[in-house]
Amino acid sequence: MNNIVLPAPVRTGGMPIMDAFSKRATQRNYDPTKEIDLQTLSNLLWSAWGFNRADRRTAPTSHNRQEVDLYVSLRSGTYLYDAAANTLVMINGDDLRMASAMQDYVADAPVNLIIVSDTTKIIGKTPQGVTEAIYANAGFISENIYMFCAAFGLGSVTRALVPKEELAKKMNLRSSQVITLVHTVGYTLD
Amino acid sequence: MNNIVLPAPVRTGGMPIMDAFSKRATQRNYDPTKEIDLQTLSNLLWSAWGFNRADRRTAPTSHNRQEVDLYVSLRSGTYLYDAAANTLVMINGDDLRMASAMQDYVADAPVNLIIVSDTTKIIGKTPQGVTEAIYANAGFISENIYMFCAAFGLGSVTRALVPKEELAKKMNLRSSQVITLVHTVGYTLD
Repeated sequence: MNNIVLPAPVRTGGMPIMDAFSKRATQRNYDPTKEIDLQTLSNLLWSAWGFNRADRRTAPTSHNRQEVDLYVSLRSGTYLYDAAANTLVMINGDDLRMASAMQDYVADAPVNLIIVSDTTKIIGKTPQGVTEAIYANAGFISENIYMFCAAFGLGSVTRALVPKEELAKKMNLRSSQVITLVHTVGYTLD
Repeated sequence: MNNIVLPAPVRTGGMPIMDAFSKRATQRNYDPTKEIDLQTLSNLLWSAWGFNRADRRTAPTSHNRQEVDLYVSLRSGTYLYDAAANTLVMINGDDLRMASAMQDYVADAPVNLIIVSDTTKIIGKTPQGVTEAIYANAGFISENIYMFCAAFGLGSVTRALVPKEELAKKMNLRSSQVITLVHTVGYTLD
């Protein structure tokens, strides 16, 4: 298996935040010829769900449970983002980008970030409470992705309409792991 | 009723976004002596759920349903954020900050933002799908609040542990309106 060791994320600089809020938007028109380089991918992943303190992340989780795993679907394969090691751990060598999609435009985008929650890590909640928690937590991460993309000239769209069960099988997820949102990222045609 | 007309939000400037991601955190130690001025409140609300395009907001909603209403709980009363008019429309003159809380520290913070979804605006989903959508959408807005606060030296915490039914009554919400998350904001003691 071919893991990808990412360059260290750059944790300073970028667009002023109010300008990024001004540009925050959803895009669905991706340029199939433009890849995302590894430095940008590292920065994106760290912004989404990296460690900005010893055991705390850029997005919150209730009781700091950190029940989320962020998977990265690229042309070259499907990977788990290991934020501590700053490495993409290969799950398989399959291009599952379209396996996450019911939308044709996804084929043109180089990166899909698959937000997955391990429900066994959430103790003491009703099934309804678990759903509320994992979707709110996915929203935090997804908005970080939107803001990073707005700031760095990338297009992105969060998608809930995903063939979740089929995709989970292709990713060999455990039965306790739930796919919540899939965030598509790429450069746009405009 | 005393509505509050907010100053126009400042849509440019602020901390570089990667620095803001570095500072994104949850705080629970608020300084009870420090208020948030109206300009900062206007900027905060616009960042959270304002219009950054004609009919699009700083946070997404599926199919642009915009089913979220953002309520603002201040010492002086409870208000609905009218983003188009940039006005806080008074709901009542009650200080409901602690009515949203099961956590003592909330009493020290001047602002609570109550994220509410009108489920009648979400068509064609199962009850499970509605829950998934409204909590993801609340997460988007809540993370915007976190990022604004990180960038401007404010403390904040999103709270799911809220006496939702009792609070909904005190806010005179319609039965179709669901409180999802409550985000507490204030200056911290440190």
